Amino acid sequence: MYDIYKEDQSMPIITVQMLEGRSDDQKKALVEKVTDAVVDTTGASKEAVTVVIEEMAKNHFAVAGKRASDQ
Amino acid sequence: MYDIYKEDQSMPIITVQMLEGRSDDQKKALVEKVTDAVVDTTGASKEAVTVVIEEMAKNHFAVAGKRASDQ
Amino acid sequence: MYDIYKEDQSMPIITVQMLEGRSDDQKKALVEKVTDAVVDTTGASKEAVTVVIEEMAKNHFAVAGKRASDQ
Amino acid sequence: MYDIYKEDQSMPIITVQMLEGRSDDQKKALVEKVTDAVVDTTGASKEAVTVVIEEMAKNHFAVAGKRASDQ
Amino acid sequence: MYDIYKEDQSMPIITVQMLEGRSDDQKKALVEKVTDAVVDTTGASKEAVTVVIEEMAKNHFAVAGKRASDQ
Amino acid sequence: MYDIYKEDQSMPIITVQMLEGRSDDQKKALVEKVTDAVVDTTGASKEAVTVVIEEMAKNHFAVAGKRASDQ
Repeated sequence: MYDIYKEDQSMPIITVQMLEGRSDDQKKALVEKVTDAVVDTTGASKEAVTVVIEEMAKNHFAVAGKRASDQ
Repeated sequence: MYDIYKEDQSMPIITVQMLEGRSDDQKKALVEKVTDAVVDTTGASKEAVTVVIEEMAKNHFAVAGKRASDQ
Repeated sequence: MYDIYKEDQSMPIITVQMLEGRSDDQKKALVEKVTDAVVDTTGASKEAVTVVIEEMAKNHFAVAGKRASDQ
Repeated sequence: MYDIYKEDQSMPIITVQMLEGRSDDQKKALVEKVTDAVVDTTGASKEAVTVVIEEMAKNHFAVAGKRASDQ
Repeated sequence: MYDIYKEDQSMPIITVQMLEGRSDDQKKALVEKVTDAVVDTTGASKEAVTVVIEEMAKNHFAVAGKRASDQ
Repeated sequence: MYDIYKEDQSMPIITVQMLEGRSDDQKKALVEKVTDAVVDTTGASKEAVTVVIEEMAKNHFAVAGKRASDQ
């Protein structure tokens, strides 16, 4: 841990906000695939990649002033 | 745009925080690969995926109380 | 969707963090009024505006070191 | 400040992420109008409303895997 | 409130994301100690410091592509 | 790194948003003191604590609809 900065790591923290409704298997796959995508493109070591999922309730998300719950 | 909610989209917004120092080509590839990873695993349509990169200066990021700039 | 960048859109994503306790009608009005405010002042098209609400529990929010739940 | 919680304030913190390119006057108007929208709909007192603007560079924002800088 | 900017305050907003499982007493102490740390080091007045806690579910947090719930 | 979840770590990520104007020494001390405060109160190991500083420009921050730059 103490030499994490030595190789010019990008130290990525990825936050995925998405509407509720995805299964736990989907979330597991999401986290794995996103981690791989970041490792492949930024040269971060896998251990340096953190992913956080933030679920949004449908009445807490809107595009064009219209919430996902108000359809 | 107006029927975005019809097919139970996840409407993902992905934020990638990482240390400064990646090239523009790396950022382009990062955005493409992360978008694909999210489409593949959550069933979102590609058009529904937003990615934001936030670069962190090395004196603004620390692990274990030690900043990346203080090595 | 593919020409979203053509007219120099601001592509705003607005996040409203607030203490729990507002009604669903208040949230609906909040999202509508905030969207209008952003369209009016930044020249974004309405369809380009995303709003996310994040509710904070009263024991998870503090000013001056004192939580809203500890009054 | 010490009685901020007394009247069930919502204590809103609004973050507006948007692409660079808006003028300072637009930002000033944005902050004023968004504050008013939040006061009107959530019953917060004006003094309790905080607004933060976060500008995104065009090569740091993508929809559908395509960055605003890559058009 | 109206002269908050007069003394070059830093107006800090601190967000602590952490895995669920801490007690309410731990959160109370966390908020107090973090507020003191920010006051001591940035010269902010205590009243100007806001702290928000965001708990992460164990299936919503991963390091190295592995979620805390998948051990 | 691989046994980070073993002891029910809180895996905290702390984000400090504050107005520009603090010195690099202040930021260094801030990061150290905040890390200690989180370790002391949540039982996280020091190596598990990440701190990110996000500076806000004075024309990008407002309370009560008035920006820090408009005084």
